[in-house]
Amino acid sequence: MKLPRAVQNLIEKFEKLPGVGPKSAQRLVFYLLHNPDHELEDFAQKITALKKNTVLCEHCHNVSESNPCSICGDPSREVEVLCVVEQPLDVIALERSNSFKGKYHVLHGSIAPLNNIGPDQLFLHDIADRLEGVTELIIATNPTMEGEATALYISEYLATRGAGANKVTITRIGHGLPIGADIEYADGVTLARALEGRRKL
Amino acid sequence: MKLPRAVQNLIEKFEKLPGVGPKSAQRLVFYLLHNPDHELEDFAQKITALKKNTVLCEHCHNVSESNPCSICGDPSREVEVLCVVEQPLDVIALERSNSFKGKYHVLHGSIAPLNNIGPDQLFLHDIADRLEGVTELIIATNPTMEGEATALYISEYLATRGAGANKVTITRIGHGLPIGADIEYADGVTLARALEGRRKL
Repeated sequence: MKLPRAVQNLIEKFEKLPGVGPKSAQRLVFYLLHNPDHELEDFAQKITALKKNTVLCEHCHNVSESNPCSICGDPSREVEVLCVVEQPLDVIALERSNSFKGKYHVLHGSIAPLNNIGPDQLFLHDIADRLEGVTELIIATNPTMEGEATALYISEYLATRGAGANKVTITRIGHGLPIGADIEYADGVTLARALEGRRKL
Repeated sequence: MKLPRAVQNLIEKFEKLPGVGPKSAQRLVFYLLHNPDHELEDFAQKITALKKNTVLCEHCHNVSESNPCSICGDPSREVEVLCVVEQPLDVIALERSNSFKGKYHVLHGSIAPLNNIGPDQLFLHDIADRLEGVTELIIATNPTMEGEATALYISEYLATRGAGANKVTITRIGHGLPIGADIEYADGVTLARALEGRRKL
């Protein structure tokens, strides 16, 4: 038995989403089939509105309702510290920690040659234009192979652009054991980084 | 920092889907943000089309492009056997097994008092109208509490409607160890049902 075309079409759409396999896509679509028409219309309308009603801030490239975004336009944020992150969700996570009062720069990815993503596919080179008045640049890309490569690339790129002459200190966000973790179960690389990053009590 | 309204709206929509938590909903929405506009339009259009381009077959209530559906309208299917299932996906699974040539009846759920789903919320009572010429009714609801209750309800309902007088044998799909399973790891209830359902070699 073949599925109705409309069902199959939507399953294929859901399958393309990250973390959604063929089985879950099927389950989601059959769940939607039990929703009333106006719910589906509403869902569809909200997908269409997603990009229409959001912009990328021209300064930090974060997803926002306004340009400049609420953080870049906030005069109470420190201008001396700039924090480079991979994704808008990273900004949300850092804001939730309540421990960073500077501004952000969102790359929208990391350098990943296997996926054909190089520095030119990211909002990377314009970091150099944002260093006016900045004394510290915190590179908070993920502690993954791609994130580390991106961090290294940024620091080298800025060095060639003479960021050192502008007295910008480039730092990397700290790595080590997450709070609540168990040393017994920590992996070797994390432990090595935690030892490297040890601090005086 | 607050998320843009359009982003938040869509996250809430995704959160309502089964098996999608707040974190995955966030990830899905930010993934969609990186899609081109026409992709989003297409996704939205396919959600709207889902119910517009499908109907429920008036006989078996399966989701279909035509009414009657391709199975009910197929003269080569046996009319003597009717198989009652909970969901359209169960029809697909049974069809894939290539071992049932009769027709189906889709309940669209199972009796679940905790979720306020009683027999009247299901396509249940009209099974009685489909027994013309049927000699065996296979109840293939899930082997869960709700599925078992539904099976019991159907057999008792049909008994009061005099299905026995029509010579309809009501059977339940077999329960036991799935093929490829390991007796060592099987749970007690499954093993008990497997022993009950033993057959002569």
